Amino acid sequence: MTTNGLKDMLGRVSLTPVEKARTILLNALRTSARKTETCPLPNALDRILGRNLLSPENLPNHPRSTMDGFAVRAADTFGASSSMPCYLEIDGEVAMGQMPKGTVRQGKCFRIATGGLLPDGSDAVMMFEHTIPIDEKMIEVIKSVGVGINLINRGEDIAKESPALSKGHLLRPQDLGLLAGLGISEVEVYAKPKVGILSTGDEIVPWAESPPPGKIRDINSITLSGLCTRLGATVTDYGIVTDSERSFFATVEQACNENDVVLFSGGSSVGMRDLGERVIEKLGSPGILVHGVALKPGKPIIIGLSNGTAIFGLPGHPVSAMVCFELFVDPALQLIAGISHPEKSLRATVNAVLDRNINSAAGRLDLVRVQLQEHENDMPLAVPVPGKSGAISTLSRAHGYFFIDEASQGFHKDTQVKVHLLS
Amino acid sequence: MTTNGLKDMLGRVSLTPVEKARTILLNALRTSARKTETCPLPNALDRILGRNLLSPENLPNHPRSTMDGFAVRAADTFGASSSMPCYLEIDGEVAMGQMPKGTVRQGKCFRIATGGLLPDGSDAVMMFEHTIPIDEKMIEVIKSVGVGINLINRGEDIAKESPALSKGHLLRPQDLGLLAGLGISEVEVYAKPKVGILSTGDEIVPWAESPPPGKIRDINSITLSGLCTRLGATVTDYGIVTDSERSFFATVEQACNENDVVLFSGGSSVGMRDLGERVIEKLGSPGILVHGVALKPGKPIIIGLSNGTAIFGLPGHPVSAMVCFELFVDPALQLIAGISHPEKSLRATVNAVLDRNINSAAGRLDLVRVQLQEHENDMPLAVPVPGKSGAISTLSRAHGYFFIDEASQGFHKDTQVKVHLLS
Repeated sequence: MTTNGLKDMLGRVSLTPVEKARTILLNALRTSARKTETCPLPNALDRILGRNLLSPENLPNHPRSTMDGFAVRAADTFGASSSMPCYLEIDGEVAMGQMPKGTVRQGKCFRIATGGLLPDGSDAVMMFEHTIPIDEKMIEVIKSVGVGINLINRGEDIAKESPALSKGHLLRPQDLGLLAGLGISEVEVYAKPKVGILSTGDEIVPWAESPPPGKIRDINSITLSGLCTRLGATVTDYGIVTDSERSFFATVEQACNENDVVLFSGGSSVGMRDLGERVIEKLGSPGILVHGVALKPGKPIIIGLSNGTAIFGLPGHPVSAMVCFELFVDPALQLIAGISHPEKSLRATVNAVLDRNINSAAGRLDLVRVQLQEHENDMPLAVPVPGKSGAISTLSRAHGYFFIDEASQGFHKDTQVKVHLLS
Repeated sequence: MTTNGLKDMLGRVSLTPVEKARTILLNALRTSARKTETCPLPNALDRILGRNLLSPENLPNHPRSTMDGFAVRAADTFGASSSMPCYLEIDGEVAMGQMPKGTVRQGKCFRIATGGLLPDGSDAVMMFEHTIPIDEKMIEVIKSVGVGINLINRGEDIAKESPALSKGHLLRPQDLGLLAGLGISEVEVYAKPKVGILSTGDEIVPWAESPPPGKIRDINSITLSGLCTRLGATVTDYGIVTDSERSFFATVEQACNENDVVLFSGGSSVGMRDLGERVIEKLGSPGILVHGVALKPGKPIIIGLSNGTAIFGLPGHPVSAMVCFELFVDPALQLIAGISHPEKSLRATVNAVLDRNINSAAGRLDLVRVQLQEHENDMPLAVPVPGKSGAISTLSRAHGYFFIDEASQGFHKDTQVKVHLLS
């Protein structure tokens, strides 16, 4: 314990800055190739596209009206106004869902509804609102239109052979809409990342059990599992492993063979940290990438890589574990899921005004949990949630968090902070 | 058609402002009671809590160390410093996961690791880093600690009988962690909202089919379905209904009987709008709530309510349909899902700088789709995505949108805009 104590004190001066640790991690993961699979379009929501897609056809494949009115030759309406109207003869009607019959000739027009296909000869649509009916066969036109007005041209939404969506794109509802519009019924997407989760510690029992005196329920597994699930990963729970090196190594090794990412949590004690370190080194090349970061809470994280599987030794305190997840596991999982530049992901943030002075030690990144409260002006008030990093309820009460950067020793009351939402 | 034309022109002056339309809608929905169901904790991720939860126990149920070190009597360390250390005898050790044996007496201490239970007699933890070992049985203490330092007290995370989570709370990963820590194995959550979706129009074919000349593939069903799924709703697709009033009414009526929300889209033409209006009125009380809003795109939306089911007649243009979803269906679904004040939901936004001048008509709310581009300063550049509201690709290319409010006639280049993310 003496050695550990000294080591910890020495370790503190060599803590890796958060940004550097993340760069080391993502660069190490970037090299490995990702598997793809074919997915029917309706199941592709929130999956990541595995290759670039070109449009197989023009959308729309025929010019269509975007208004209710009359298909016209734009030149026929030149100069028309309410004081100087022009007159057009109604020579036909476009039936919805059918190819138009006939041609619009000079001085004539066809009735057309929104979505109707433009008949030959016409090059614009005159809105009803700008016409006055004279009789069954004649309208008065009180405004001019230019060529291409009130219609959508062939391929104007997307042209045949042009890029539709890029590799690495997250498929949102509107993206499925675009692909449906192009008749693409299945897509190549990246395989879902597989994550193995285990908890360590002789004091932990499964949360569904009633803990005997001295023990506590496992909080981290279900929290980490939920975070992974939200990122689209498939989670396997390897349960709780005791502090014995043999059983711990065996379980982590199995989890590494079966997953893209392995998370173990617990082991905030120096002894457990050393055990985690030894196990990652033993698993194989390249081994430990980062051990300890200049972060509060979350300092004792261990990040390793073994035969392509990323291994995260997360602190046992629930808040520290979740903070480490946000800053390291989340971008790693995004990268493994197929997002090309997770470090550039636009995080959902809200600007808020800090309601008190808050101190921080220079040289480390502090993450401050806050509640957001309504405020007289447009910007909400950021109210720090007090509480220790062992207290999960502080994360449950928090609406989000902001950072105090390494260079700063704290923020004054009324400072504007960027709150990352925990929604 | 003459009547319709006039009606539309008159209708324009009586368009409902967006905010007012939303208030009418949410107030009408707020009265109806919501069903709840029991859900096992691991399946409760992203569900909405159906009742207030009190903590059934103290978390933790015994004071625990938050550091590796020694359980001490704080008074024994009073005045200790590196120049004037005090000495404590190591009189025991706390084994992880077990109740401590023995009592810490004056001038003595117990070894303890993070997570270990505080033995009787001790009231603080001295970190290893502030001790120097003398021999197997004695440490030198070079810093004082106060009572309660480096430990978490009984009930400090959450106290027995205190509020844990409130009715209407979205269960995030950390909330499941809190409930797991309290041993709550199942929760009462609101039933998932049920949404029925149908598309209308003689020109629409299912997206998986090859459209014959004159027809186009259905884009809205899959987009709307994805949006509903992301909000936790269960979606039933009622397919494509022709413009015949009889079949349209029959399908909408069935969908209303089977769902909490019914969305039909298509029918941007005046004829279809009238049909939608007649069908909602015919379905029963209170009928139409809003018909047409001062919004671009999205003006022709019809909102109705019949026997507790909210009915949305969305415009046929894919962009208009999705905009109406964002502004009206989304908050309605949140309310129906159990969120008490969806109008106060903190939307994920990013501040950005507009890259050009942009015009708007006063008196209506404009929603401008944008791409976000990296920029020399901290704030990204908002680049409007040109294109008609019939062009789904504009939504697929967009990273988000901002609003130009009713009072404004546009924004100048370099205006700071709040971009709502479409992520």
